[in-house]
Amino acid sequence: MTKKSSANSKEKLLQAAIKLFASKSYAATGLREIVRAAGVSVAMVNYHFGSKPTLLTAILERFFTQIIAIAQKNLPGDQPAEIKVRQYFRALISYFRQEPELMRVAIAELPRDMPEILDCKARLIRELVATASTGLLPSLPEPARSHVRVEIVGPSIMGLLSAHFMLRPVIEKVFQQTFDDAFYQNFADELADLFLYGLFGAKKED
Amino acid sequence: MTKKSSANSKEKLLQAAIKLFASKSYAATGLREIVRAAGVSVAMVNYHFGSKPTLLTAILERFFTQIIAIAQKNLPGDQPAEIKVRQYFRALISYFRQEPELMRVAIAELPRDMPEILDCKARLIRELVATASTGLLPSLPEPARSHVRVEIVGPSIMGLLSAHFMLRPVIEKVFQQTFDDAFYQNFADELADLFLYGLFGAKKED
Repeated sequence: MTKKSSANSKEKLLQAAIKLFASKSYAATGLREIVRAAGVSVAMVNYHFGSKPTLLTAILERFFTQIIAIAQKNLPGDQPAEIKVRQYFRALISYFRQEPELMRVAIAELPRDMPEILDCKARLIRELVATASTGLLPSLPEPARSHVRVEIVGPSIMGLLSAHFMLRPVIEKVFQQTFDDAFYQNFADELADLFLYGLFGAKKED
Repeated sequence: MTKKSSANSKEKLLQAAIKLFASKSYAATGLREIVRAAGVSVAMVNYHFGSKPTLLTAILERFFTQIIAIAQKNLPGDQPAEIKVRQYFRALISYFRQEPELMRVAIAELPRDMPEILDCKARLIRELVATASTGLLPSLPEPARSHVRVEIVGPSIMGLLSAHFMLRPVIEKVFQQTFDDAFYQNFADELADLFLYGLFGAKKED
């Protein structure tokens, strides 16, 4: 087995797992099904992952490492908070659009009975929260800086940004809308308006 | 079979299904498992529901009917938008705290391959959006009233309000916090501050 074909089969397994977990849930997907969809040998899944939980852990790592890198790139530094938040939101939305299934699995999957998955997810989110708050909090104006409760605002930002993608098949029907490039053109900025200035302040002046 | 014992076994089946779907997902739960957990006879599940999708539909109906009733009670009328939103958020959070598993199933479950579930959910959310926007939009100040894109703000509010509950087992670990009555005392109002005034305006003056 060459290094390249090994990396290749690892990636095929991950992609097959993401697709199956996104459409049927982690719990309802079998390891054999993943192997079959990936078109690799059973030996490969043992070699690269060993078990279904390890596959889910690898998916979580991939998603949150990328989100943490986006926070790291956009939130620290001397720019005004508003500019940082807008850049951060645009980069996140662009990533969510590229990887809707990965995102759905990484955010939604939370098997109650698997402490190792819970621990992995908590560790990654802890790192994200640390990166985002160290980067953003110092640049917030007072009194916002002193009043923010990160344990409330943190999950709320995640919900605000991800709800559209998590519910997309349903809201496409609700609003009878296709979500094309035109729809997404100002999407990240509208969410940033809402997050920074609220419903009363959103889109003050055009 | 008396009317009362029939209603009783229907409720037992619903409660068992909510618990199992919340912990293992809809896709991974079998109808027999629900019957066993409910402690009723197989005849009862056939009599009341007939199939697993019908059970999920009944769960969606229960949750969204309640949420629509909360919107109906709090959002129409002549009061200022701020007061309506605060009342609405408080009532929603109080309901989510009472029914965390029902909420988790009703929001998270979105089996891609079951158009009848997608249709049911879309119909209920359409009714919620209509109730909420007819009640709230006319009381918004300009320019917010004209600028709001309901298809963006709607799902965002849902994400903002539900993220804490959807991710609770993880964020409990991340922030090493127990979510007791003290934590929740101002929770709905902090989310309302964030939603109405944004991060920059949140908790202006205490």
